[in-house]
Amino acid sequence: MVYSAQEKIKEEIIIPPYEGRSALLKPGEELIIIDVDGKQVGDFVCFNRHDPKEFVSPVHMRASLSSIRLKIGDPLYSNKRRSLMTFAEDTVGKHDFFFPACDYYRYKVDFGKEDHPNCHDNLNNALKEYGLGNEPVPDPINLFMNNALNEELDYEIKEPLSKPGDYIRLKALEEVVIACSTCSQDMAPVNGWNVTSLKMQIVEAK
Amino acid sequence: MVYSAQEKIKEEIIIPPYEGRSALLKPGEELIIIDVDGKQVGDFVCFNRHDPKEFVSPVHMRASLSSIRLKIGDPLYSNKRRSLMTFAEDTVGKHDFFFPACDYYRYKVDFGKEDHPNCHDNLNNALKEYGLGNEPVPDPINLFMNNALNEELDYEIKEPLSKPGDYIRLKALEEVVIACSTCSQDMAPVNGWNVTSLKMQIVEAK
Repeated sequence: MVYSAQEKIKEEIIIPPYEGRSALLKPGEELIIIDVDGKQVGDFVCFNRHDPKEFVSPVHMRASLSSIRLKIGDPLYSNKRRSLMTFAEDTVGKHDFFFPACDYYRYKVDFGKEDHPNCHDNLNNALKEYGLGNEPVPDPINLFMNNALNEELDYEIKEPLSKPGDYIRLKALEEVVIACSTCSQDMAPVNGWNVTSLKMQIVEAK
Repeated sequence: MVYSAQEKIKEEIIIPPYEGRSALLKPGEELIIIDVDGKQVGDFVCFNRHDPKEFVSPVHMRASLSSIRLKIGDPLYSNKRRSLMTFAEDTVGKHDFFFPACDYYRYKVDFGKEDHPNCHDNLNNALKEYGLGNEPVPDPINLFMNNALNEELDYEIKEPLSKPGDYIRLKALEEVVIACSTCSQDMAPVNGWNVTSLKMQIVEAK
């Protein structure tokens, strides 16, 4: 139980390994994403429910935040430079928002695999529930992903710092459709070499 | 004259302040982009001529290069994780590929200006010459842009390090349509508070 006694969970969604799930949040509702077993990255995207051409955009976030680290209180800016959600709570402190979703080409080109599950397609499959998912997905926020930059600005992808039960919390400022995928990379340290579940809880607006 | 006596320039294109220009390059041809007066950022995009859904993609470059700095010899990877060009020569050593193009929303939201020229629209206008420019432009490579990261991974946009006549050179590996905009931000240090011209030269394949 990561929520307080005063909160009411209106929906709980398990994201199985190698899959994605979507949800609708109204303004004021909150989304808790829990790393059930630890060391599991979640690729996260978010659309304005009333204008799907507007979505949370890491490249615009980096500009508006003047930063490449994600901190509690940060707005999640859209490609129209408006905040759709707020990064409200975080028990880990290390996430990524400059890396792409793994996709068909990632596994084909870099690993010679034609049919590997991938976050890009997991997200699009999940988004179909809300009539989205027919275009390339926007760049994701990669929750719990641990990219370690060195002084030369090269980086190494290390195992996530998240332990079982660690979580983040996002607050919706607009009506949004969100989707999250259990990152499907099982041939690198990004998920501790092992893809596991995530759990989403939607908290009623106060 | 930044090219050697053995080279033949087949085309020279001036990009005036607050505008964009496009060009077609065949495999083996090279593109020199010269910062004529110094301290001028160029927002650069590149499409596969035969499949405009494939374009140079900074987010995929950061993954394939395991880096957020651009070095001589780096391939410019596409959203299909293939190299469309190579970063062949560079007299400056400091560029950006994690920042968005300035756009309508940047000037409207952050500066209260409705009609400021912006790189996004400059690039799309320039791309119309090749039947492109009807969709949001891909994230650009911001040539000569000087984002200085601190230890906390926050950054400050400083004046470019480029002096008059400094340049970069890209080699085409495929037939590509490229476009470059003189970054139109005149209310911040990004272009030294002053928007000036860039010059493109296309060098015949050897």
